[in-house]
Amino acid sequence: MTDTVISSATKEIVIGFERPFCVIGERINPTGRKLLAAEMAAGDYSRVEADAIAQVEAGATMLDVNAGIPLADEPAILAESIKLVQSLTDVPLSIDSSIVEALEAGLAVYQGKALVNSVTGEEERLEVVLPLVKKYGAAVVAISNDETGISEDPNVRYEVAKKIVERAADYGIPREDIVVDPLVMPVGAINLAGRSAFDLIGRLRNELKVNTTCGASNISFGLPNRHGMNAAFLSMAIHAGMTSAIMNPLHAEEMGAVMGADVMMGRDPECRRWISRFREAPAEGEVVGARGGRERRRRRA
Amino acid sequence: MTDTVISSATKEIVIGFERPFCVIGERINPTGRKLLAAEMAAGDYSRVEADAIAQVEAGATMLDVNAGIPLADEPAILAESIKLVQSLTDVPLSIDSSIVEALEAGLAVYQGKALVNSVTGEEERLEVVLPLVKKYGAAVVAISNDETGISEDPNVRYEVAKKIVERAADYGIPREDIVVDPLVMPVGAINLAGRSAFDLIGRLRNELKVNTTCGASNISFGLPNRHGMNAAFLSMAIHAGMTSAIMNPLHAEEMGAVMGADVMMGRDPECRRWISRFREAPAEGEVVGARGGRERRRRRA
Repeated sequence: MTDTVISSATKEIVIGFERPFCVIGERINPTGRKLLAAEMAAGDYSRVEADAIAQVEAGATMLDVNAGIPLADEPAILAESIKLVQSLTDVPLSIDSSIVEALEAGLAVYQGKALVNSVTGEEERLEVVLPLVKKYGAAVVAISNDETGISEDPNVRYEVAKKIVERAADYGIPREDIVVDPLVMPVGAINLAGRSAFDLIGRLRNELKVNTTCGASNISFGLPNRHGMNAAFLSMAIHAGMTSAIMNPLHAEEMGAVMGADVMMGRDPECRRWISRFREAPAEGEVVGARGGRERRRRRA
Repeated sequence: MTDTVISSATKEIVIGFERPFCVIGERINPTGRKLLAAEMAAGDYSRVEADAIAQVEAGATMLDVNAGIPLADEPAILAESIKLVQSLTDVPLSIDSSIVEALEAGLAVYQGKALVNSVTGEEERLEVVLPLVKKYGAAVVAISNDETGISEDPNVRYEVAKKIVERAADYGIPREDIVVDPLVMPVGAINLAGRSAFDLIGRLRNELKVNTTCGASNISFGLPNRHGMNAAFLSMAIHAGMTSAIMNPLHAEEMGAVMGADVMMGRDPECRRWISRFREAPAEGEVVGARGGRERRRRRA
């Protein structure tokens, strides 16, 4: 058993082999969202606010917060976004940046135990990110690439993950605070990407005994019916042992796949969450949709 | 490698560990379909005809044909249905009956190597069905229950499957001509039904080295959003090693799950089948739907 505990000021969640799958909402990220980027750079956080609420209502276990905007003051914007999101919701956050100063600014204002997203196996990243993770008592996403890039060989990716876990231990960060991202490649480019991801996830769980995550939609890049393919990938990855994913909880197919997989793995006792989400005949005035209106109603009841 | 070859007069398909998943269309079955039952009993096979064509167009690899109508002449109706379906399509058939005379009548008219559905581990069934399977050189679905009923213990179900495989060997029927149905229970009644099915499928594949099948929709019995749950189950079962299922190919979610799983397992080279089915912008006059209009068009091109 490897339980990764992440918390906000008032709520604790656990990523673990026998836990319900941890959905990390990916929407608060200006990469590829020009309007959001412009708004955030101009100090308008209304969309961050709406995205936070919508994702939690749709069933996100955690939210990822990224403020990567070219030429903007990323540390300040990330810290601001984190404070705002924590004022709106009690789900724990993943603090997402490739800039160490931004990670530190985010960690400094964060209330609870955050998930730092991310460190790679590159020496210079290990040396700056791991001390930060230790200093703030956080957990960290470990991406299995290093100076040589992303290997197509799953054995190399496994070894990089192992190196990060060992290096983290040197800094006093325990194995359960490392969530490994095995790097899922697009199956449209690499035909065996799904299979090798599943094999690697299984090894990371059984041999390295770590929790795992990934950017789930990478798998379907460039292909039609991406939601359908993401759904198949997620269900199968959960069977292979994956315990969390950075994904869009507003997409019904993907969320159905995750919730169905939880049922299949015996992690939804008496199918209560499944039934609550999908039971028929919405009550009068109830809005059921990707934004999880029914969830909202249930929580308020 | 265990390849189960099934054929019609002109077409051979293979159920196997490294083959695309075998979808056995379940629609030609009057059980629970009153109108179809009444029509078939009255000699009207128009719906059988339509169901055969629609399922093949939707992507069925094989078709199951059942004529279980109370008080009707099942052997005659089953034989008639099989002749009709074989005149309409070249996919191989599964001959489905609990009445041995009906299985024999079906086998007698069948052109090719059929899949007999089914034999159980009950002594009296083994003694009558296996000689028939041998006589006609067919393959057979082996259902893992016996005189004591369906065990909730997967180990018992495994042992029943093993007994059937051994008994079949005594009759000269090789292991590759046995497709085991591990009996999937409704997860709404038995919370660990999914997980124990996956474990059993894995053992059947790795230890007993047989192909597997199941009635896929059993898993979701009594629950809302059955298609979503069937989809999650199918993808995960394919990852666990399941190689075929008796299912409704007209349901888009289930077919998406199967086709997505084939991509994930590396059994859809260059994602060709996936792209062909889901690529955007249907051409003018093309009808895309559960009935597979696009497939039809493609084949005619």
